[in-house]
Amino acid sequence: MEVYIAEFFGTALLILLGDGVVAGVLLKDSKAEGSNWWTITIGWGLAVTFGVYLAGMVSGAHINPAVTLALAAGGEFSWSLVPGYILAQFLGAMLGATLVWLHYYPHWERTEDKAAKLGIFCTAPAIRHAPSNFFSEFLGTFILLLGLMALGANQFSDGLNPMAVGALVVVIGVCLGGTTGYAINPARDLGPRVAHFLLPIPGKGDSDWSYSWIPVLGPILGGIAAVLFYQAVF
Amino acid sequence: MEVYIAEFFGTALLILLGDGVVAGVLLKDSKAEGSNWWTITIGWGLAVTFGVYLAGMVSGAHINPAVTLALAAGGEFSWSLVPGYILAQFLGAMLGATLVWLHYYPHWERTEDKAAKLGIFCTAPAIRHAPSNFFSEFLGTFILLLGLMALGANQFSDGLNPMAVGALVVVIGVCLGGTTGYAINPARDLGPRVAHFLLPIPGKGDSDWSYSWIPVLGPILGGIAAVLFYQAVF
Amino acid sequence: MEVYIAEFFGTALLILLGDGVVAGVLLKDSKAEGSNWWTITIGWGLAVTFGVYLAGMVSGAHINPAVTLALAAGGEFSWSLVPGYILAQFLGAMLGATLVWLHYYPHWERTEDKAAKLGIFCTAPAIRHAPSNFFSEFLGTFILLLGLMALGANQFSDGLNPMAVGALVVVIGVCLGGTTGYAINPARDLGPRVAHFLLPIPGKGDSDWSYSWIPVLGPILGGIAAVLFYQAVF
Amino acid sequence: MEVYIAEFFGTALLILLGDGVVAGVLLKDSKAEGSNWWTITIGWGLAVTFGVYLAGMVSGAHINPAVTLALAAGGEFSWSLVPGYILAQFLGAMLGATLVWLHYYPHWERTEDKAAKLGIFCTAPAIRHAPSNFFSEFLGTFILLLGLMALGANQFSDGLNPMAVGALVVVIGVCLGGTTGYAINPARDLGPRVAHFLLPIPGKGDSDWSYSWIPVLGPILGGIAAVLFYQAVF
Repeated sequence: MEVYIAEFFGTALLILLGDGVVAGVLLKDSKAEGSNWWTITIGWGLAVTFGVYLAGMVSGAHINPAVTLALAAGGEFSWSLVPGYILAQFLGAMLGATLVWLHYYPHWERTEDKAAKLGIFCTAPAIRHAPSNFFSEFLGTFILLLGLMALGANQFSDGLNPMAVGALVVVIGVCLGGTTGYAINPARDLGPRVAHFLLPIPGKGDSDWSYSWIPVLGPILGGIAAVLFYQAVF
Repeated sequence: MEVYIAEFFGTALLILLGDGVVAGVLLKDSKAEGSNWWTITIGWGLAVTFGVYLAGMVSGAHINPAVTLALAAGGEFSWSLVPGYILAQFLGAMLGATLVWLHYYPHWERTEDKAAKLGIFCTAPAIRHAPSNFFSEFLGTFILLLGLMALGANQFSDGLNPMAVGALVVVIGVCLGGTTGYAINPARDLGPRVAHFLLPIPGKGDSDWSYSWIPVLGPILGGIAAVLFYQAVF
Repeated sequence: MEVYIAEFFGTALLILLGDGVVAGVLLKDSKAEGSNWWTITIGWGLAVTFGVYLAGMVSGAHINPAVTLALAAGGEFSWSLVPGYILAQFLGAMLGATLVWLHYYPHWERTEDKAAKLGIFCTAPAIRHAPSNFFSEFLGTFILLLGLMALGANQFSDGLNPMAVGALVVVIGVCLGGTTGYAINPARDLGPRVAHFLLPIPGKGDSDWSYSWIPVLGPILGGIAAVLFYQAVF
Repeated sequence: MEVYIAEFFGTALLILLGDGVVAGVLLKDSKAEGSNWWTITIGWGLAVTFGVYLAGMVSGAHINPAVTLALAAGGEFSWSLVPGYILAQFLGAMLGATLVWLHYYPHWERTEDKAAKLGIFCTAPAIRHAPSNFFSEFLGTFILLLGLMALGANQFSDGLNPMAVGALVVVIGVCLGGTTGYAINPARDLGPRVAHFLLPIPGKGDSDWSYSWIPVLGPILGGIAAVLFYQAVF
């Protein structure tokens, strides 16, 4: 049970911080309003780092169903734990998104832009083009899992591994995030999207369900492909 | 006595550097004038890092009454040392703020904006809304203490711990700082606020005492809640 | 054979991420469009870091013919492996560039600027001046190899070396990259230039072959000079 | 003799990279033109890091007369080595500045601004006010030596110490650099100032000799004060 609790709170922290940086940049009158792409990407990278610090010693800190499924597909994680991990990750992501809503409470009604308000919770493509968007999420998560496998093969002191994982998320965001906003994590996208749908956010628009399958399916398949590739080649 | 001296100078260094970065960004004709949110948040993060490097080997480098009280409440720090730690932290913060005033001496009279001059010393909310502002400071400090507890549970070489603590302050600032400016430390806010009140700063405005209780009480309660939460769950 | 495979995929990852950050900044409607010089330089630095994490344990992660040739010239790498390493690096760079093209697929036709589209693949000088441009590439790669030799002389835990190498590439980019865009790697420049020539990129211009020898010859000579210098002096 | 050679090349690398980042930001048509304060401060920080990596194992990498004199004053460095160290540092700084001039060769004649061209080589105050400027350089170097003493007291793996030293220079630049441009190193300022005076830079102005004593004397006295303070208090 404690591994599920760790995944739950680790993912909640990831989303509170990660969606939090986007809220800070996009919400009206935030002190971080209008900050640049670097600010968003380092925010998400460190969000992952501290999600891993929180949960890592207990559950290994997947905090991402694509990681859980890919490791299981590669035989490096028990399938029996997969359903509990994924459920904990989705529920944690919803808690994190709800805390973002509360943290920035007075800013929502000052913000007109419906797309910005949705963009705080979940991703949207820069150009709507399903095959390319799918490929971007597939490739981004392929690199994430490839990098995680490579980090595991290097000799780290344990305390530094979460920093390196955060750097990996930074480089994916900075270098590949411009197309779809690099969900690379089904729980990161779908959990907060559900929260956006449920929460009483002033002046919100729809939750863009027609796009929602891409940041779920792309990361899952990309992650599995990367683990199988790494095992075959390295 | 030496632990109090370490807390005093550690907090002075924290505030000299942290208030210093805000001064550099806000004061007229500074070479850093108009720098972005990232610059402010990395400045504060590294300010904490070097406050911890300076005081850490002697006093554990709380340099924050919310940390001192939360650790005491969790049974990880002796209550008998609490009054001396907190006094040293407040006095150190006042020294640091005074050094910022001296360091940027010729810039104060060139700067018109009264709110900017106060904002160098202490925090002000982006939107004045007491319950939300309180919640923001509570949550930000909750994450600070949660992160500190999690870092303590990871295996670090000692020399790197201050870097990780700095990264924790960076992520809180980048991701959650947009609402209240993330005091997350009563000494960091109240000490420099008193300095602002006392120092002969040209063209200064009032010291916004009506807001001053929030960045004191929010961090204290958020920090205690986090330590109790961490001990119960992890 | 496995060392060549590691060089191939390590260089592919380097170019996917490195050319990817430039694509994100320059392509129309990318979420990273218009990002600053820091974003580009940290993107390239971390691209090198993760190229090294991926290939390092197997091949030593040269992922750069200038490194391979310089180490061979200095007697620190076997000449018999040089041809295979360099071939793998060029082919890997072409794969990486092709993945960038696919990743940003719908953005190419929205982007008018022919020079920007070429600039995603390979470097161009800020001011076209062959002796100076050659000197810039010579000096930048001299510093790269000097830094690599110096890093090797310091006592690192293995897991951190790739981070330090990435920081080395960041400092070269930030401090010396403004003149020629710091190719400092023949495979990084020529491989993607060939890919630009071959790929059906909408509205592309020519591939600027007249400049292409400088980011090949400058890095090779600069790298060799640095290793011989380091061995003579330190 | 080898310690002097290490100081010479370590300081040359420091200035090539550090003055290089300012050149990249200020010179006309550089790809880094107009980059922000963060770019400058991280460039200087990493310049110090790699100066230390290069010279550290041989000479301890002072690469700064204020460090050399302060350590000697504190009894931690032999006075007999001081003259050679300082001479090597000044000559190395002049070499570094000359390489910056060569690296950016075609950019100088395109740049009108005389103050910018001087500002690439040495510092100038934001507001000319001798006592305050002196105090800023005194305080900045006080923090530098205080931080170096504190880092020495922490337990680092050797390979990481240069990174921490670079972070120390970053935080001084970001937080305290806005007033005088943080020379905090007499060789860093006076060496390149002499180079500016001697080199045939197109359209250069005077070398501002009337200010030149402040970034020499301020750092020397601030550094000595910090070491004596640290030894007395910690």
